[in-house]
Amino acid sequence: MSYEITKENIEQLKILVEEENKEQVVALIEDLHPADIAEILEDMNAEEAKFIYLLLDGEKASDVLVEIDEHDRKRFLKVLPPEFIASKFIEYMDSDDAADVVAELDEEVQKEVLNEIEDIEQAGDIVDLLEYDEDSAGGIMAKELVAVNENWTVATCLKEISVQAEEVDEIFYIYVVDDTEKLKGLLSLKNLILNHTNAKISNLYDPEIKRVTTDTRQEEVAEIMDKYDLVAIPVVDDIGRLKGRITFDDVIDIVREEAEKDYQMVSGITGDVEPGDKVWEILRARFPWLLIGLLGGILGAVVLGQYEDSLKDVTKLAFFIPLIAAMAGNVGVQSSSIVVQSIASGVKDLETPARKLFKEVSVAFFTAAIFSLLIFLFNHFKYGDMNLTLSVSISLFIVILFASLFGTVIPLVLNKFKIDPALATGPFITTMNDVLGMMIYLMISGYFFDLV
Amino acid sequence: MSYEITKENIEQLKILVEEENKEQVVALIEDLHPADIAEILEDMNAEEAKFIYLLLDGEKASDVLVEIDEHDRKRFLKVLPPEFIASKFIEYMDSDDAADVVAELDEEVQKEVLNEIEDIEQAGDIVDLLEYDEDSAGGIMAKELVAVNENWTVATCLKEISVQAEEVDEIFYIYVVDDTEKLKGLLSLKNLILNHTNAKISNLYDPEIKRVTTDTRQEEVAEIMDKYDLVAIPVVDDIGRLKGRITFDDVIDIVREEAEKDYQMVSGITGDVEPGDKVWEILRARFPWLLIGLLGGILGAVVLGQYEDSLKDVTKLAFFIPLIAAMAGNVGVQSSSIVVQSIASGVKDLETPARKLFKEVSVAFFTAAIFSLLIFLFNHFKYGDMNLTLSVSISLFIVILFASLFGTVIPLVLNKFKIDPALATGPFITTMNDVLGMMIYLMISGYFFDLV
Repeated sequence: MSYEITKENIEQLKILVEEENKEQVVALIEDLHPADIAEILEDMNAEEAKFIYLLLDGEKASDVLVEIDEHDRKRFLKVLPPEFIASKFIEYMDSDDAADVVAELDEEVQKEVLNEIEDIEQAGDIVDLLEYDEDSAGGIMAKELVAVNENWTVATCLKEISVQAEEVDEIFYIYVVDDTEKLKGLLSLKNLILNHTNAKISNLYDPEIKRVTTDTRQEEVAEIMDKYDLVAIPVVDDIGRLKGRITFDDVIDIVREEAEKDYQMVSGITGDVEPGDKVWEILRARFPWLLIGLLGGILGAVVLGQYEDSLKDVTKLAFFIPLIAAMAGNVGVQSSSIVVQSIASGVKDLETPARKLFKEVSVAFFTAAIFSLLIFLFNHFKYGDMNLTLSVSISLFIVILFASLFGTVIPLVLNKFKIDPALATGPFITTMNDVLGMMIYLMISGYFFDLV
Repeated sequence: MSYEITKENIEQLKILVEEENKEQVVALIEDLHPADIAEILEDMNAEEAKFIYLLLDGEKASDVLVEIDEHDRKRFLKVLPPEFIASKFIEYMDSDDAADVVAELDEEVQKEVLNEIEDIEQAGDIVDLLEYDEDSAGGIMAKELVAVNENWTVATCLKEISVQAEEVDEIFYIYVVDDTEKLKGLLSLKNLILNHTNAKISNLYDPEIKRVTTDTRQEEVAEIMDKYDLVAIPVVDDIGRLKGRITFDDVIDIVREEAEKDYQMVSGITGDVEPGDKVWEILRARFPWLLIGLLGGILGAVVLGQYEDSLKDVTKLAFFIPLIAAMAGNVGVQSSSIVVQSIASGVKDLETPARKLFKEVSVAFFTAAIFSLLIFLFNHFKYGDMNLTLSVSISLFIVILFASLFGTVIPLVLNKFKIDPALATGPFITTMNDVLGMMIYLMISGYFFDLV
């Protein structure tokens, strides 16, 4: 099938590029989807990619540019003159893609490119879109849509649509507006086709329509479209005028992006890396958590240093340090990630705070009881030293309670202060849980062994 | 806006339900979207939910049923007679939802329900769909779609569509088939509207069409639809006959599901839990990893027990146990999750194995070098004991190298054997890394201190 690019294709293409065989290269790529061409270009070196790219015609070239990784695109656009960017790329693009590309340029270049765009309406659309926060509905919407006036008939609509539709790749829905451009409702193509040409739109449209405003956060847009299975949603301004629309493909990207961000946080990676990235890029993404881990480890060593005498007298205490630290870390991450995932999924939270606290305490209490009992039994039969057995079990009990509550409360607090709650599953708090767990352990042991 | 259900709404509704005020309850919920009603029901207790549910009319009731959490739905359907399920719910549903619901029933009940469905064609569709693996394209597709014959004209099509469209909520694309029902291509509604009624379909349709077969894995379906921004994709059988279609809302669900599964794995939770779940459900989801963590901790204690004398002689060695264990675990999870995420995102992997190995070794080497140097400097200036300093630094170097390679290779191997690579980020391997890290540390220290 055409979406299977094989290593053989790539090798073949590389050979043709090396031979500078333009005809054969064009023959191989001209029927490919822009997304496939972008994928191929990312597997080529800069020289090869440039050779292939220059063989694409205007519209295809701009479609491919939209599909390329942001990082590569930036580098590529840096070497092109503004009038080339405007006339070869921007003019073929939908307003949302065009605005994204322009936003990636340096401010100086932005102005030049905007001035070079011949279609003054398109330039205006891009300038409008650049005003919005890039994470808001305004920042991801496209201006291209099909809108009809509520006072028209089906016949007028069909004529108007055939004009407007030229600019719009997929219609999905027809939006109905009044004379002041306020959004009144939605008309499905199906309804349009199935009704008589003299019928008035005002009698056909559905006024019950989900909408978002230009300042709605993109996560909320995704949530609404996902919940109601919407293929597109209209975006209105504060007084209800239709400004643009957001389509399902944007939502898939948002859902994926959000999930990846949280995943990276909990696995201790900062930023978006893949095995294909450069060595230093991977290093840079991994460094921060490891550094915090190292500092946590050093702090742990300092804490243990305070109890050097205890550890010398009762060396067995040292055996359970990793267990206490690991359980503290694990319980903390579990608690945090359940909260983070529920915040991210946007499930409405209708439990009272008292009920929530009671439940978290119950879970923590049972968890603590079960695992303390297990380690009590192990120690009792393995070492038979009641002081040791009690030290470890009681410490584990307290540490689990503590880590659970800490893990639950921190993301909620972060969220309250509009900080990404996923931070709680990340390095800092896990490490803190580790270190605090050890302190609790050694203090309690000190009590049982009367050492400190 | 209508999608904002507030706590106040819920409280008000609960009071009305308690008063058994049917009229007011209906007034409050009748204009709500089924997804909203489902959300409300999930916040009610069983009695309240039942009271509200019985007030819904047939179509709305079945729409709500589709939106309810699978777990709650199963419990609910258990108490209903088969003929009721068939006539009140199944008959109003699209074939994919109907098949999902039927699949959740016990086998005995399944047969009875299928026999009670009056529309024999619908029953046949459901039986067909139940044949497919639930994670394949066949398992998620719906039979409802609009198909036209390549030999028809635009006029015939419009007439046919008005008949077929009654069963299909949203048309999106019109599929073109030949006389043997083989998929030939795709016709957009836009094209249909914009062409003359006498035009022949065979001249209008686009034969370049992405398709999947009934046995394509759902992750691959999602990947293809995401890559090419498809709102729907046709599903064909092995000889190319059109069997059904999959729409974008299924893809959003798949993307979310996959991301959540990986996220849960890396945070040590088995299964899908939310803070709103029951105490024992949360406990059950958290128990397995904690148990493995505990066993790992016990194994760690046993390993350390082997070196009791060393630890007694050089107590300072114990200070760095948490550091070594934490770094081993962190490095391992980082390496694994980068690989897992890249497998999950379906990015084509076109690097040679030799190049890949070289790069991973480079990253591991630099990471190990940086952090060993840092801990070397700390120990040198803090304790000034060269044996201790060298033991910790060299161990950390080896442990990081080891954990990196382990973390990279394991998910690749798992993937090769068709096991979910995300397992590598989970409990078992992290714990193994911890324990092996400590063993390496104590063996190397033994060499420097000549203790064992």
